[in-house]
Amino acid sequence: MSDIIEVKAGIEAENDKFAADVRKLLRNTHTRLINLMASPGAGKTSLLEQTIDGLKGAYKIAVLEADVDADVDAKRIEAHGAKAVQIHTGGSCHMDASMTLQALQTLDLNEYDLIFLENVGNLVCPAEFDVGADLKVMILSVPEGDDKPLKYPLMFQVTDCILVNKIDTDEIFDFDLQKLQKNVAPLNPKAQIIPISAFTGSGVENWIVYLREKLLAWNYSCH
Amino acid sequence: MSDIIEVKAGIEAENDKFAADVRKLLRNTHTRLINLMASPGAGKTSLLEQTIDGLKGAYKIAVLEADVDADVDAKRIEAHGAKAVQIHTGGSCHMDASMTLQALQTLDLNEYDLIFLENVGNLVCPAEFDVGADLKVMILSVPEGDDKPLKYPLMFQVTDCILVNKIDTDEIFDFDLQKLQKNVAPLNPKAQIIPISAFTGSGVENWIVYLREKLLAWNYSCH
Repeated sequence: MSDIIEVKAGIEAENDKFAADVRKLLRNTHTRLINLMASPGAGKTSLLEQTIDGLKGAYKIAVLEADVDADVDAKRIEAHGAKAVQIHTGGSCHMDASMTLQALQTLDLNEYDLIFLENVGNLVCPAEFDVGADLKVMILSVPEGDDKPLKYPLMFQVTDCILVNKIDTDEIFDFDLQKLQKNVAPLNPKAQIIPISAFTGSGVENWIVYLREKLLAWNYSCH
Repeated sequence: MSDIIEVKAGIEAENDKFAADVRKLLRNTHTRLINLMASPGAGKTSLLEQTIDGLKGAYKIAVLEADVDADVDAKRIEAHGAKAVQIHTGGSCHMDASMTLQALQTLDLNEYDLIFLENVGNLVCPAEFDVGADLKVMILSVPEGDDKPLKYPLMFQVTDCILVNKIDTDEIFDFDLQKLQKNVAPLNPKAQIIPISAFTGSGVENWIVYLREKLLAWNYSCH
């Protein structure tokens, strides 16, 4: 049974202070935090299931499952052998740094190398809040369309990595990966774009390689 | 060329007052307002294109296109012969009643029978704001999954009608319409659920019939 915790939004002007507190807390235990953002139903939980399986044995993982309500995702995560903390955001459509700090403080961080925050399904507000993560990853799912960077530019600007999920359905939805790359380039030329299918498993190994390289680089960097 | 207007969010506590102002403004000209809500990429604009075509000749239609940025949707709407007003929400992830009022005031409402507000792509915050609409319609697209009512309950509670779009892909995504109905029932037993494909056109006629019945009922009711 996963823990369920209720968190309260912090004062927006103080978000950077709380983000610094999150970083300090994580540095003390050499724990890394990844902020995973996407629209509802883009495949965040499925991706995490595949990621936990892909890193199994190498890293101790916990997942903060942020939702307005429900705990279905936490149960799915725990079935894959990772610790899950279900966060109820009290109606908030995003996680801020204060909420993230409240959730992290429920864990003994010495026990975990890597923590994923599965943010609330939303392409707008989560992009505005630094939660103190080491890496920002977003999922764009193919059925949403290759024009989404034009409509939700901030999310595509702030992310380090864009996982293009459900890529096995690109022909059905007339999704053009090159058009997506062209739409992302002016916003974020450094963004890593990795097509995957969390359903068929196609491309997931590229994501795991990218993630392992990040984790190794972090381990060799100064804490 | 569509108009582009920048709107500013109102004070949240005053939203009901602004919603009443919207209703008063619309009643004076016998104009109806439909608030269309959905996740990014669920098919709001495609549905509106089909709807404008389906009602052509019978009703004079305008569309308020709310986006954080961009005007791609407004251009698509105008190509179908309806008036489009592109609203930039200044970073806001939803429309409130004050913003809706600002947008409506740019139109001569005597010229329109029916106005669609294409809300910002988001399943959380738009559900919290009464914008003064006569009808709330949401789109859930099949790739998002039949479990979404569990995770975004407020949206499924407040809506009058749920259009289940991209229904032609239900087998690919293992989407169970009965499971969706079962998930919606405890939240909103009166919700009308209509499966459609804005891409193939399948089921759209059922939505048009539903809408025409609403419009007729409104015309016969007291203003």
